[in-house]
Amino acid sequence: MNIKIIRSVKELVEYRDTLKGKVGLVPTMGALHLGHMSLVDQAVKDNDYVIVSTFVNPTQFGAGEDFDSYPRTEKEDVALLEEHHATAVFIPKASDMYPEGYNSWVEVFDVTQKLEGACRPTHFKGVTTVVNKLFNLTRADNAYFGQKDAQQVAVIKKMVRDLNIHVNIVVMPIVREDSGLARSSRNTYLSADEKKAALILSKTIKLAESEWAKGEKDADVLKAKMIKNLETEPLASVDYVAINHWDDLEEIKTIEAPTLVSMAVRIGATRLIDNTILK
Amino acid sequence: MNIKIIRSVKELVEYRDTLKGKVGLVPTMGALHLGHMSLVDQAVKDNDYVIVSTFVNPTQFGAGEDFDSYPRTEKEDVALLEEHHATAVFIPKASDMYPEGYNSWVEVFDVTQKLEGACRPTHFKGVTTVVNKLFNLTRADNAYFGQKDAQQVAVIKKMVRDLNIHVNIVVMPIVREDSGLARSSRNTYLSADEKKAALILSKTIKLAESEWAKGEKDADVLKAKMIKNLETEPLASVDYVAINHWDDLEEIKTIEAPTLVSMAVRIGATRLIDNTILK
Repeated sequence: MNIKIIRSVKELVEYRDTLKGKVGLVPTMGALHLGHMSLVDQAVKDNDYVIVSTFVNPTQFGAGEDFDSYPRTEKEDVALLEEHHATAVFIPKASDMYPEGYNSWVEVFDVTQKLEGACRPTHFKGVTTVVNKLFNLTRADNAYFGQKDAQQVAVIKKMVRDLNIHVNIVVMPIVREDSGLARSSRNTYLSADEKKAALILSKTIKLAESEWAKGEKDADVLKAKMIKNLETEPLASVDYVAINHWDDLEEIKTIEAPTLVSMAVRIGATRLIDNTILK
Repeated sequence: MNIKIIRSVKELVEYRDTLKGKVGLVPTMGALHLGHMSLVDQAVKDNDYVIVSTFVNPTQFGAGEDFDSYPRTEKEDVALLEEHHATAVFIPKASDMYPEGYNSWVEVFDVTQKLEGACRPTHFKGVTTVVNKLFNLTRADNAYFGQKDAQQVAVIKKMVRDLNIHVNIVVMPIVREDSGLARSSRNTYLSADEKKAALILSKTIKLAESEWAKGEKDADVLKAKMIKNLETEPLASVDYVAINHWDDLEEIKTIEAPTLVSMAVRIGATRLIDNTILK
């Protein structure tokens, strides 16, 4: 096997000290799919070394969320990463990332408190803290994130700017199945019927894009049309549909490019997100 | 002039990219004295480049504290740093460090909430955030702090450990005037009478050391002796005298080395701190 498997913080620190050249970081929670692979492929193009972390970060899950059931597919992840020429995979224990007495947190406010942050109030504190730790551990030149988690992208960019972090953030487009369904590790939770029902998300995203292309500029009108469309699917229950300025996430009334149209929808027990940037 | 004066974040980022070799960071708020210079001298010994920041950081001052009156002595600072062979001095504007819409914060809990943190509840949030920014901007190999701010040392070390920051923290001993008074930028606030009165701090630190040397192990007894001694000085008013485990700052009943003995005392309107480590 050519890929280096790193299982502890100490090992990563030692490994990083041996690297001379550009380092790319792809932070993931494992359960890798073609969306993640688009990040890895780009990172391999841009850097001399690509470190992929596959850490299911407990601090970004709220009480009652799916931390315990989140898919863990280490063997498949490592094989896929090797196939895509990642240099190293970092698979730490939670007790190594957050040892006893751990109590330092990186928080971004405002941009974290709406959309996903409103539904998942402690989520981004966990994200910004773990991403900061990964930036410090890898001292990456470039770090790769998927547009699928649009708010996460906005939050990480804000954190990097505010805290003067020496890293270039590269954002890659959403990767979809042929059906249109945005690829997500959580898609594995869906039954066959639910997977069919989940298409209502990407269809509604397409609807928003075509309404915008036809000249619709009123955010409330567009939102209402989207919600109406989502409600045609009996298995769908809407968490939110939102239209915000990209990238400060201010809510807007009149759409002027670039605008983030995003949604969170439950299909049965599974919470899915999707989005597009109108520009 | 040989020292490079850097007045903006952008300039520091560009400058840092030109450096190849070990970088030392000495974060200060200016108004430099021989205490700071002991940090600079050590940094010059240890590194190829020494960047000294002299930024009076507004976010570490509470309401009603001395942000406005804090001494600003830029010309003298730069001359002193040049004399001591620092490579660069970073003197940013507050609006450059905290631009409009700034809203990212690094916080360490527990260790920040006692001693100075109990008296100054927002202080360490400002310290940890600005030090994090300076670490990111300078990507320093070594960073230098004075033992005079003992709790700050404990907080920064905790932050570096928790967030996996790639920097070595070097702590230098308290530098005192011949009288025993710990050197501090705030000593300039003292009148001649107050300066004499302020000697009660270092005298009480010496008392603690000699009681410990004589075998006193009971923290409450030692604290009572110290407070009694401080109260012999009519101009002194005690904020706290504390005895804590070094370096997690847990309060202790029985002194077992290494133990931090620390105090904050007001002499007239000026709040001074002093400490020693019993070992």
